[in-house]
Amino acid sequence: MPNLNSSFSHLNHRYLFSLISEKIKPFQHLDLVNLGIGDIARPLLKPIADAISLAVYEMTSLETIRGYGPETGYSFLKKAILKDEYQKFGFCEDEIFISEGINPEITVFHELFQAPLKVALQDPSYPAYYDTHVIAGTIDSVNRPCFLNTNHDLGFYPELPNEKVDLIYLCSPNNPTGAALTKKELKKWVDYALKNESIILYDGAYEAFITSEDVPRSIFEIENSKKCAVEFRSFSKSAGFTGLRCGYTVCPIDINFSKMNLNQLWTKYKTIRSNGVSYPIQRGAEKTFDPQIQVALKEQIQSYLKQTKYLKTALNEMGLETFGGTDAPFIFLKTPQSYNSWQFFDFLLEEFGIVVVPGSGFGQHGEGYVRLSGLITEATFEKAKIKFETLVKSGLYEAHH
Amino acid sequence: MPNLNSSFSHLNHRYLFSLISEKIKPFQHLDLVNLGIGDIARPLLKPIADAISLAVYEMTSLETIRGYGPETGYSFLKKAILKDEYQKFGFCEDEIFISEGINPEITVFHELFQAPLKVALQDPSYPAYYDTHVIAGTIDSVNRPCFLNTNHDLGFYPELPNEKVDLIYLCSPNNPTGAALTKKELKKWVDYALKNESIILYDGAYEAFITSEDVPRSIFEIENSKKCAVEFRSFSKSAGFTGLRCGYTVCPIDINFSKMNLNQLWTKYKTIRSNGVSYPIQRGAEKTFDPQIQVALKEQIQSYLKQTKYLKTALNEMGLETFGGTDAPFIFLKTPQSYNSWQFFDFLLEEFGIVVVPGSGFGQHGEGYVRLSGLITEATFEKAKIKFETLVKSGLYEAHH
Repeated sequence: MPNLNSSFSHLNHRYLFSLISEKIKPFQHLDLVNLGIGDIARPLLKPIADAISLAVYEMTSLETIRGYGPETGYSFLKKAILKDEYQKFGFCEDEIFISEGINPEITVFHELFQAPLKVALQDPSYPAYYDTHVIAGTIDSVNRPCFLNTNHDLGFYPELPNEKVDLIYLCSPNNPTGAALTKKELKKWVDYALKNESIILYDGAYEAFITSEDVPRSIFEIENSKKCAVEFRSFSKSAGFTGLRCGYTVCPIDINFSKMNLNQLWTKYKTIRSNGVSYPIQRGAEKTFDPQIQVALKEQIQSYLKQTKYLKTALNEMGLETFGGTDAPFIFLKTPQSYNSWQFFDFLLEEFGIVVVPGSGFGQHGEGYVRLSGLITEATFEKAKIKFETLVKSGLYEAHH
Repeated sequence: MPNLNSSFSHLNHRYLFSLISEKIKPFQHLDLVNLGIGDIARPLLKPIADAISLAVYEMTSLETIRGYGPETGYSFLKKAILKDEYQKFGFCEDEIFISEGINPEITVFHELFQAPLKVALQDPSYPAYYDTHVIAGTIDSVNRPCFLNTNHDLGFYPELPNEKVDLIYLCSPNNPTGAALTKKELKKWVDYALKNESIILYDGAYEAFITSEDVPRSIFEIENSKKCAVEFRSFSKSAGFTGLRCGYTVCPIDINFSKMNLNQLWTKYKTIRSNGVSYPIQRGAEKTFDPQIQVALKEQIQSYLKQTKYLKTALNEMGLETFGGTDAPFIFLKTPQSYNSWQFFDFLLEEFGIVVVPGSGFGQHGEGYVRLSGLITEATFEKAKIKFETLVKSGLYEAHH
């Protein structure tokens, strides 16, 4: 009998969001306020739905039916992505790969490289980067990743590694801290990568929420980054596609190895392991770049950010210490001193019916925080505010400070 | 600098269908008849499009919006799949995994097992099984796969391995031969797997085309197969979803290892590496199980098979030797004696504008054949027939026999 992949047994926790779902199940009868999983709360724009629907009906006619699409995505969508942003960095269609979202791409991209790999991970950060390397056996008790301290004392910016690493996962704006790398900070990373011949896998899931002027939206705004960086983007948060599934990966042709080219290898990988993304969904994604839709989507983002700001301000006025919330829809809330992240999670859930995400679920330097999502409706905000007010008034929070 | 995964350099060929696409490019100005890639030719049924469209518009309202769905798929679709077939084998929702199609699932499933793995592959068969193991480094010049001779002398049934293997990839009806395992043949494999503690990965992409009474549609029709088999299915060919992307994997909870369970491991894998399948597409897939739609889809399949039969009969009447075409929309055509598969491919393309797939692209025992797809329209059939008639009349074919 084959043995099961023993790497799975090294996963030291259940997948964070599944665990939370299970924890909240017994409390569903309460009037829960979910500030937990960073899912969208505002509806899909109707013209985007129209574009998808139109494409679906194209499939019902012999003249316009589309079967298997190109494995790396349709040209119409690649063109729209290039026009929107990437052609100004000199990219071409072969460098754009349409995907079902960031997660299924960034969790397999490391397969293009030869193990053993030295992997650098922000701590705290999105847990799937770590988990996928554990499964692949590229991280184990001997070959530990290089955890980049990304805590409060450093302004939530990750510390540069003091060793040579192969792959660097950078999420900016970072999930869960909400902190975004400024141009100056990001340049340090590109410089480090060029000097140490590392590859940066840049997760830009929340780029649409960037408001600070000194924060780049794309790593390719940094000079020479095309020689060391791959960027992952998604329509999930920028256009409300979490339930529709579409994203893209920008893999430059300028990353050359002795015999092969990273872009060619990724193309080969996609060609073998994928049959492309659903055609109607790609038409919907294309529609998001329509100038009028862009205006409407920016308004949607602004309303999420306004919500986030309200929540942050309200919490601050109650005397609670918060971070993030400026360039991302996430607020990183300090727990009362005697509570660790999970204890505070349980406390908020059991006593107040508030669902958050424990910061420690994102790494040990996330300990002592919980993540609140501002991807909520006005109604949820109002409920959350009242609940937090009750919490503060009860003195319970203060008693633990 | 990290090294690129050297396994890629062991891929001894470009991905078959990409290579064909490139080969036919210079001939696009000719009136080509494409009997190559097995893509759908008939339109999506309108009620399925309605179901998808309805679900897309649900996303535009705050009351009915759906964000991230369950990583393993929505319950409504799992229920429909169970009701249609799998509940009669005693399966439950946790054993059904909704996917973007067979390819992206069956090419990563091996990651649940510990390398080194002894892999058994039908020869000829779908090339992605082999390619994905090469990429993963589980097949190399030292650890060769066990190729199961699946040629004409054996009635295109694969030969049982004469060694102990870990993983067996069975595609039935097989792509490219069109041969389907009878109940008796399939039972041999389940018996072998149970005795040798192997796992069978059963690719049922073409099950909807089975017409022979002694051919099972599911491997789970064989007793005790739940202890050794995982089945992969797709809506691509059964309902015209190649451009929409939806399928499912049935992974029994009865496959237990010393410490872990295969089903639990696959659940964990999906939870970490996927965010689920597009919600509207899952609604479309659900609709395919509607009794009235089932009737219409069966008619569609019948019309493809009728087309395939016409083509096969026409070729036979011209004196050409064909196989398959009964339980699958594929005809395996013997090449003239002095032509190998690629030579005959080039000849058909260059002289007659007929596109086929070289049998040798599916393995060395596919050499001497080309695959013709019956997933065509009546118009394509008529054109193909005329072209083949010209070919036969020219005497060129016979001259090489």
